[in-house]
Amino acid sequence: MVLIKNKLAIFPGEVDKGGIIMDLWVSEMQTADMRISCRVIKSLHSEMTPFQKLMVVDTHQFGRMLLLDNIIQTTVADEFVYHEMISHVGLNTLPNPRKVLVVGGGDGGSIREIIKHKSVEKAVLVEIDGKVIEAAKKYLPEISCALDDPRVEVLVDDGIKHVKENKNTYDMIIVDSTDPIGPAEGLFGAAFYQDVHDALTEDGIFVAQTESPFFNRELIPRIYNDVASIFPLARLFLANVPTYPGGLWTFTMGSKKHDPVKVDISKLPDLNTRFYSPEIHRTCFVLPPFVQELIKK
Amino acid sequence: MVLIKNKLAIFPGEVDKGGIIMDLWVSEMQTADMRISCRVIKSLHSEMTPFQKLMVVDTHQFGRMLLLDNIIQTTVADEFVYHEMISHVGLNTLPNPRKVLVVGGGDGGSIREIIKHKSVEKAVLVEIDGKVIEAAKKYLPEISCALDDPRVEVLVDDGIKHVKENKNTYDMIIVDSTDPIGPAEGLFGAAFYQDVHDALTEDGIFVAQTESPFFNRELIPRIYNDVASIFPLARLFLANVPTYPGGLWTFTMGSKKHDPVKVDISKLPDLNTRFYSPEIHRTCFVLPPFVQELIKK
Repeated sequence: MVLIKNKLAIFPGEVDKGGIIMDLWVSEMQTADMRISCRVIKSLHSEMTPFQKLMVVDTHQFGRMLLLDNIIQTTVADEFVYHEMISHVGLNTLPNPRKVLVVGGGDGGSIREIIKHKSVEKAVLVEIDGKVIEAAKKYLPEISCALDDPRVEVLVDDGIKHVKENKNTYDMIIVDSTDPIGPAEGLFGAAFYQDVHDALTEDGIFVAQTESPFFNRELIPRIYNDVASIFPLARLFLANVPTYPGGLWTFTMGSKKHDPVKVDISKLPDLNTRFYSPEIHRTCFVLPPFVQELIKK
Repeated sequence: MVLIKNKLAIFPGEVDKGGIIMDLWVSEMQTADMRISCRVIKSLHSEMTPFQKLMVVDTHQFGRMLLLDNIIQTTVADEFVYHEMISHVGLNTLPNPRKVLVVGGGDGGSIREIIKHKSVEKAVLVEIDGKVIEAAKKYLPEISCALDDPRVEVLVDDGIKHVKENKNTYDMIIVDSTDPIGPAEGLFGAAFYQDVHDALTEDGIFVAQTESPFFNRELIPRIYNDVASIFPLARLFLANVPTYPGGLWTFTMGSKKHDPVKVDISKLPDLNTRFYSPEIHRTCFVLPPFVQELIKK
């Protein structure tokens, strides 16, 4: 992208001696009626993949940011909240997780957290869009750094198919997806959750990101009830991700045997985390009444 | 505000038969590098008061919204989080709060929550800008509804002066202020906190809104350390307000005697709340490590 001003070619993020001559922002329509915008230092990458529009921009507020179909997926500044919470709450509920699957999550952040667990022998990433993995490796090394770990297997494939074809295989399955529109739509349905259930070992756990309790008040109970109808135990928990709409985010867990709120938190390992902690493991399941009412029978 | 298009005068929020012909948004620069925007149905009120710019707009996402100096103060859709948490955590820590002061808070939301407590005999609001109270009464009846209650006294005055002149008077003082720029600057300093301490009765409690743990990482420890140097007990707690930057907000408490985390939550009254609950009373003090590190000595 090149603008011509005063006969000079100016590139995004450049500033001339007279002041800022290009004021570039990236904006996400978080809902039809609400927008977040971040000032951009430099646009690093933009392409149409076979699945979606992929962008990487460097922002002043959050550092490097990955967007898919114009929606913020992750940023270097706040990704720790999401990736720690989608991984450790479930893994620390299991006594000895060995094999873990991430569906989606091509940036690698969930994988990075999973391999902090010493018991994990294999972490498999199944991402449908290989371009997301390539971009993360090139532009987001802080997030993708574990994708080349020997315990990690990266597959560019359809997660729905993979789950269907691997019965009784994984101790934990994490659905680290985009929003329930576009390529990820099938990851939010009861048929998929049944396949996830069947792909888990006998005491396995499943965790998915399930959107905002302020803005997705129809989706959350639908997912929760689907999961509760398939798994012996369903739980909803919360974390604070500032670049997601409203800043408060839900995760839905289905568990075959172990209850996350009954974990002895005094025995949890130190995982060098910035949002997750043993006490947060306990309190993230305490829902304010306006969230609780979403999932009460 | 009138736009002329095709010889017709169009007012904000109006839509002609051919589609939206006016697309009005209200935007807040949450930081120098981040902006939130909400689509406006109608601009209801705009004036320069002696203290600040005051606006009330009706938005699609959050309903009616009060802005001061272009910063979102409260909205009908999410005000419950902030007002419940700034009031009930402190009041439910005290065995028998009778006299309560709100400094700022001209919208009346904190007062509405305070008078839910049966022990409260008098709730005093000291708001420096009478125009805020007038606008709240006219445009935000859901929030300001308790300002005419017989137990409530409304003073248009300087809160700093009021606190200095009323020693040993209040069981709880709530500082429900704008950001620490402009008229509220003096409400974020150690000299004011000392006056607040002296205006409290012997087992009194003070709570202030103290900004975002993501974006105000210098302010929060400064306030916390000031409060901890003046009060026997200082505590930080969290709540989720989607229209505030990052969606996660801190409150700082100074207490002369009672520890909020030692309250027997099984005995707390039902206050008909949507965010606060006895369990939230306990868990709001559990800080993620990245917040905890802000206030560790």
